[in-house]
Amino acid sequence: MATWTLKRRSTPYRGRVVRLHVDEVLYRGRRITRENIIHPGAAAIIPICDNGDILLVRQLRYAVGKRILEIPAGTLEAGERPRNCAKRELEEETGYRPGTLRRLGMFYPVPGYSTEQITIYEATDLRPSVQHLDHDEDITLERMTQKRVRTLLRTGRIVDAKTLVALLYYFGDTL
Amino acid sequence: MATWTLKRRSTPYRGRVVRLHVDEVLYRGRRITRENIIHPGAAAIIPICDNGDILLVRQLRYAVGKRILEIPAGTLEAGERPRNCAKRELEEETGYRPGTLRRLGMFYPVPGYSTEQITIYEATDLRPSVQHLDHDEDITLERMTQKRVRTLLRTGRIVDAKTLVALLYYFGDTL
Repeated sequence: MATWTLKRRSTPYRGRVVRLHVDEVLYRGRRITRENIIHPGAAAIIPICDNGDILLVRQLRYAVGKRILEIPAGTLEAGERPRNCAKRELEEETGYRPGTLRRLGMFYPVPGYSTEQITIYEATDLRPSVQHLDHDEDITLERMTQKRVRTLLRTGRIVDAKTLVALLYYFGDTL
Repeated sequence: MATWTLKRRSTPYRGRVVRLHVDEVLYRGRRITRENIIHPGAAAIIPICDNGDILLVRQLRYAVGKRILEIPAGTLEAGERPRNCAKRELEEETGYRPGTLRRLGMFYPVPGYSTEQITIYEATDLRPSVQHLDHDEDITLERMTQKRVRTLLRTGRIVDAKTLVALLYYFGDTL
């Protein structure tokens, strides 16, 4: 399957969460370069209230320079399983614990330059707990009807990949 | 709107396509760090044949270590507009030129750590031209009925963000 041979690797950056590999690989007799973010993976949760409302978070994102509407999500800690990460992040970001957590699927947000995979869960039977944000997170909780979410989707106001994919997986039975 | 002040920036990596910024920013009186990929943006195209079939490409992705099914896409060249990038990439990867190109929307694949935005187009009225792949691309063209694409989607065999989002935008009118 793997048709490349690693010839040389440099690691120009090691951060708190990710590191960057620049690999020279031999591929069909040619030497090519691959710039690659090594990422531990993430979990994202679409939280469904008992009446069908969806909980979203409006989050200030430094990279894109604005607040965008997202489902709760977070990066896996060392050795953490996606399901446990999903439970932890849901509670931290929304203040609810999931009575039921169902895996909807996974995806690669940028397979061209990152190893990151995001596993998506549906959370139902939500139970009130306590929200506790990281000190560098700026998050506002927004509860919306499914109709409202569909309107935002149709009018291009949901622009975050994991949120769009979660909505596809959640509403997708009708496709 | 922007509630942060940049205090210090290092650029530990400048690559062919992306560069990495590590920014120390002042945010609500605290000094926080943001690791940030600076990306020129990309365009992706869902190509629809006259009979409704969809053209996909199966592409070997080094970062995730396997071949995955995607819509044609590529990175914007310097000064290139997303629409022109979409035309160019469609022709390069599939050997078809679009008679009609319609913008479906855009999204951020990883707003937590990359500036990348991907604009998605629907291509119809396809006209045969010549495929010409980059030397480091390993791509196979696959033409599929919409029914087959829906089956692959439901069974979790489409795992690429831009492809999933394009399918949501394309089929989304039924949501």
